[in-house]
Amino acid sequence: GSKLRSKVSTFGKKVWKIGADSPRKVIHGAKVGAALTLVSLFYYLRPLYNGFGSSAMWAVMTVVVVFEYTVGGCLYKGINRAIATLSAGGLAVGIDWVASKSGESWEPVILSASVFLLASAATFSRFLPTVKARFDYGVTIFILTFSLVAVSGYRVEELINLAVQRIATIAIGIAIALSICILVYPVWSGQELHLLVSRNMEKLADSLEGCVEDYFMKSEITDAKESSATRSEGYKCVLNSKASEDSQANLARWEPAHGRFGFRHPWKQYLKVAAALRNCAYCVEALHGCINSEAKAPECMKKHLRDACMKLSSDSSKVLKELSSSIKLMKRSKSIDALVGEMKNAVHELQNAFASLPNHLTQTTASSPIESTEGKKNSNISIADGVALMEAMPLMTIASLLIEISARIQGVV
Amino acid sequence: GSKLRSKVSTFGKKVWKIGADSPRKVIHGAKVGAALTLVSLFYYLRPLYNGFGSSAMWAVMTVVVVFEYTVGGCLYKGINRAIATLSAGGLAVGIDWVASKSGESWEPVILSASVFLLASAATFSRFLPTVKARFDYGVTIFILTFSLVAVSGYRVEELINLAVQRIATIAIGIAIALSICILVYPVWSGQELHLLVSRNMEKLADSLEGCVEDYFMKSEITDAKESSATRSEGYKCVLNSKASEDSQANLARWEPAHGRFGFRHPWKQYLKVAAALRNCAYCVEALHGCINSEAKAPECMKKHLRDACMKLSSDSSKVLKELSSSIKLMKRSKSIDALVGEMKNAVHELQNAFASLPNHLTQTTASSPIESTEGKKNSNISIADGVALMEAMPLMTIASLLIEISARIQGVV
Repeated sequence: GSKLRSKVSTFGKKVWKIGADSPRKVIHGAKVGAALTLVSLFYYLRPLYNGFGSSAMWAVMTVVVVFEYTVGGCLYKGINRAIATLSAGGLAVGIDWVASKSGESWEPVILSASVFLLASAATFSRFLPTVKARFDYGVTIFILTFSLVAVSGYRVEELINLAVQRIATIAIGIAIALSICILVYPVWSGQELHLLVSRNMEKLADSLEGCVEDYFMKSEITDAKESSATRSEGYKCVLNSKASEDSQANLARWEPAHGRFGFRHPWKQYLKVAAALRNCAYCVEALHGCINSEAKAPECMKKHLRDACMKLSSDSSKVLKELSSSIKLMKRSKSIDALVGEMKNAVHELQNAFASLPNHLTQTTASSPIESTEGKKNSNISIADGVALMEAMPLMTIASLLIEISARIQGVV
Repeated sequence: GSKLRSKVSTFGKKVWKIGADSPRKVIHGAKVGAALTLVSLFYYLRPLYNGFGSSAMWAVMTVVVVFEYTVGGCLYKGINRAIATLSAGGLAVGIDWVASKSGESWEPVILSASVFLLASAATFSRFLPTVKARFDYGVTIFILTFSLVAVSGYRVEELINLAVQRIATIAIGIAIALSICILVYPVWSGQELHLLVSRNMEKLADSLEGCVEDYFMKSEITDAKESSATRSEGYKCVLNSKASEDSQANLARWEPAHGRFGFRHPWKQYLKVAAALRNCAYCVEALHGCINSEAKAPECMKKHLRDACMKLSSDSSKVLKELSSSIKLMKRSKSIDALVGEMKNAVHELQNAFASLPNHLTQTTASSPIESTEGKKNSNISIADGVALMEAMPLMTIASLLIEISARIQGVV
């Protein structure tokens, strides 16, 4: 009894938390409810349907199936559904007509053969990458409509009558779903993608800085570790966001111009930026791994390289943050060139610090009793800084790439 | 004219290539066609339906919507559809009954309110992670069925009659879809996942070995670069396979026992192995990045560390390959312990090589005219090897993790 109750209450708290964290999801639920109520009232109040109104059914079904969280998703499904229904219906009526002309005994053969062939071909076409990305839903509806019309209809005249009625119903369903989706608190895929990319960039900047800071400060302050640990884990979001970015970019393509985004906004550029970011995140992940490894570098070496490393990481993260805000505001940042220059300086400083390290290192090696451990330590410290250096290279490539891209975005908007 | 024709012919070639590469996809297309033909013949040959047979429609629709590429997907959708239809239908009939008892004027209010509330709640529930992963499709069908039944039905007795007929139709549709999906060349999600993980492991092993070999051999043989470049890119598949692994594991859970997989096969273990592999792949990516960076290490250092590095990378990749084949065969490998031991030895050898490097390095530094470049080179070589060492650490963790897991898999199968 009490066990169940506590389970239910934790579940309730979880649900409440999701709702409180993102009120848009609750609003989405209410939007779907409103659309469905509207469409059912529409058919409930005018008793158009005969018996178990197949028309009303199609409107309800369309609303349920087409209504998606984002405007892009809704448009994608609506447009796909409309095109697929029209083309499949037309084709099926045509084949029905041919079949009806060819005599009683051939009719079932022609109909079944056409259903088999078209369904097979359409299903196979879903494996083509372009079709998969843009028309997956449309193909399903095509198969469905075609088989329904081809199988259910005997007489062509009756079919055409019904088709007109059904198309009108589906159009009403799509119109209701789209208008509620677009007019009431719309969620734009494009904007989601935009925010996701700039947020990821910020997270990456934070985690890069936090990670290096963590490493060099750990010996001094250990209390603040907890908070900065969560901060430096931010790059993990960047690693795992590929799938959602791809789908958002796919859906964003269907959206009309809205807000500061034009109709042919270069959504693919976002994917490129995101891929570059992910590349960066791999490096941060590697850096993170070797910073958290057990082997420790000697304090004196750490001190020697600390300032240069910290400067490089903070400069890099400044560049990323500036880029993130320039993406957010969609204009070319003026200070970005200066920041990139500063980052390059920091790279040189770090290289100089390395250049003076061998002297340092020789001293330590001489004074160290066990050579083997020293060798390990040496390798470890040069890993940490080496990775920082190596990481600066993709960072620099990315920086120039991003400048290019932000210029392009600015050119388009 | 000729431009269009060449476009069509390249498209045709692309389609042909997909078909030839994976005949299972073509077979899947034929399976869907066969199922649809079967279900339509079923209804075509017995003129059960009245006029525009709404029953036949439901069977066709069920087949189209439920039929998926893998058995897991098909079962997931079929079971979801069945449960959702039954529960939503029952609930809707109940609410209809209550509404019909409460008088003419209250009936539409109760019905619309219940549609609004249930649709909103169900839509919102799709955002809960558990529901999303396992019952997403079921929730859609629940909303659909509930609104259809609640809106379309006036009299409860009629409704129950219709419900029985419709449930029978949907059951026939699901039965046809499932039996063709399972009996004719089935594609099991579980097996796909199994193959994917072991193939990824092999690819990672290849690319780790290929990458290091590439680096140390490049100066000697440059002709073979092309072929090994594609080989060492294999880790990229590992990086991007998270989404498909997750969905396969999700679907595999619905599948009954088949082949060498039991009913409660530990699919989550595969995800853990895959996550560990991805961790490894991040390191390989970082290694790859710094090997392909412009800065070159001096030849003498390369030579000094070559043997140890090559040995470590080949040992590591041997461990991965052994694990991959032990996963493939689903039994604990006998030689894995020996191989892991060898890998550990290789790590020690590399550490020793590092330990003797400082002497080496001091000599070179002394003889080098420009200290700054030397410092850079120094950092570069210790990156390459440092990363190899650092990489060995997650490799070792992973190795022990994998031994654990392969033992568990063996325990279950």
